[in-house]
Amino acid sequence: MKRRDLLAMTISMVAATSATSAIARESSTKRKPSFVLVHGSWHGAWCYAKVLPHLIEAGHMAIALDLPGHGLSAQFPRSYSVRPLDAAAFATEPSPLAKTALDDYVKAIGSVIDSLMQAGSGPVILLGHSMGGMPITAVGEAMPQKIKKLIYLTAFMPASGTAGVDYLKIAEAEGELVTPGFKADPTKVGVLRLDPNSTDSAYIAQLKAAFAGDVSDTEWAAICNLLTPDDPVSPFATPIKTTKERWGRIPRAYIRCAQDYAIRIRQQDKFIALADAFVPNNKTEVVTFETSHSPFMSKPAELAAALIKLAS
Amino acid sequence: MKRRDLLAMTISMVAATSATSAIARESSTKRKPSFVLVHGSWHGAWCYAKVLPHLIEAGHMAIALDLPGHGLSAQFPRSYSVRPLDAAAFATEPSPLAKTALDDYVKAIGSVIDSLMQAGSGPVILLGHSMGGMPITAVGEAMPQKIKKLIYLTAFMPASGTAGVDYLKIAEAEGELVTPGFKADPTKVGVLRLDPNSTDSAYIAQLKAAFAGDVSDTEWAAICNLLTPDDPVSPFATPIKTTKERWGRIPRAYIRCAQDYAIRIRQQDKFIALADAFVPNNKTEVVTFETSHSPFMSKPAELAAALIKLAS
Repeated sequence: MKRRDLLAMTISMVAATSATSAIARESSTKRKPSFVLVHGSWHGAWCYAKVLPHLIEAGHMAIALDLPGHGLSAQFPRSYSVRPLDAAAFATEPSPLAKTALDDYVKAIGSVIDSLMQAGSGPVILLGHSMGGMPITAVGEAMPQKIKKLIYLTAFMPASGTAGVDYLKIAEAEGELVTPGFKADPTKVGVLRLDPNSTDSAYIAQLKAAFAGDVSDTEWAAICNLLTPDDPVSPFATPIKTTKERWGRIPRAYIRCAQDYAIRIRQQDKFIALADAFVPNNKTEVVTFETSHSPFMSKPAELAAALIKLAS
Repeated sequence: MKRRDLLAMTISMVAATSATSAIARESSTKRKPSFVLVHGSWHGAWCYAKVLPHLIEAGHMAIALDLPGHGLSAQFPRSYSVRPLDAAAFATEPSPLAKTALDDYVKAIGSVIDSLMQAGSGPVILLGHSMGGMPITAVGEAMPQKIKKLIYLTAFMPASGTAGVDYLKIAEAEGELVTPGFKADPTKVGVLRLDPNSTDSAYIAQLKAAFAGDVSDTEWAAICNLLTPDDPVSPFATPIKTTKERWGRIPRAYIRCAQDYAIRIRQQDKFIALADAFVPNNKTEVVTFETSHSPFMSKPAELAAALIKLAS
């Protein structure tokens, strides 16, 4: 082969390599991080139905899961289906979900993350709403290499070694409207028990004020129909140990919801302050929404836009 | 540059080009078709919660949507939240969903398909369960170029110019258990009305026999909690015009469910026979499950495996 031919061949290969690299680069840029969305107490995957299409339109793989004991896996005390309600029976009947544990949630979330990664996804954006903040914290500690970012959507983000229950009765929780809706003693029935099927319109209005003061009564009725009454206590009572080297190194964001009467804004700010004090070199990225506890219903497009921005 | 250096450079570039091509090729093969899953009457996106993770694990983008009037968009007659039920009021109260039309469903599905394609998806696999067969038929006719395959999951697949209602009272429907559960005259209230919140255990057992005879009572309770009472009549009453050149050219599959008491197996076979007679050069690909009307609950992994196979 002559030197001139070799040179021409080299040049044509440089061109080819560069073109192929462009294709590979484009398809690699197109592979945006996947989202795994975890709901809160009494909710299910269904709460993200208005958010998911926006994430997918922006090119993200996205999936919401039913935690064990929620959505299609919900279980009910017998007394819940008796109306008029026998309030005494409902207040004392042990829940079939009393033994559901934080670790069950962690395994379910881990399995979805593994499914995504098996399909070629990189580390995921893991979002937890409300109670969902607890299992995503535990998942972050257990498998930090699989998480690109943790997003706490007005969620529990307990300090290392503490449990969700440690933040229910603090001064910063003043004004919250969820616990007054409890229909049973959690220590007796093993769950936090609400009555979303109540025929008492004042009670339903109080639940709306707690969870979704900024949606219409019509929208609240749709949510209420999907809520389940029993949410396991055990995941709230389990202290979650985190370390600076594992959970503490994962980039994290907190979406504050200013008009939230389930987790008050001062509680949310306490979680952020505790986390930032624990890992001062990895501060929480903070976004604020002027919504209730349920921006997935009152501002789904805006919430999706914020998530897409946080993922970029 | 010496000839030996040029040769070495060329060889290293051949290697680089080959490696980059492999990456590009791999990422292009990985782009499997996207799934859009449409639920049936009284259901919502929630019914696919156990199926979606399997599709995603296999590398498919997949999304289930709430049709208008369903899931988070459900609306309820006032009498539904009064217990004990005032049966006379429930039987006559017009539904807030009475004006919801087939075209509303078509637009909602089209919007999700457009979102996926905007994100880089090719034509989608569009699945409809039960009543969902009607809007996917209309979507197929309206935008055949956006559909890679239609999958009817024990679904209505009406012949051109006919409506869903034309198949409710045919001989092949004998033994179906859904219409006996109706709690109101559809022509008066504008919807097909069930009472999934009924306190009558015999009625709930009858609904289970109609929809999901092969799931446990516990699983049925979870489904019942998520079902909504009112399903618009209008989409059932709207004749759907299809043509050989548009709907008729889209590859289609039908998943028969042999133990189905909502749409009987003979009804399912009638739909298949009508479609195959209409477009004999594009026969229905048939898969049979030995399940009730709800394989997404009784056999979610097997259903997902069948869908993945149908998409390949």
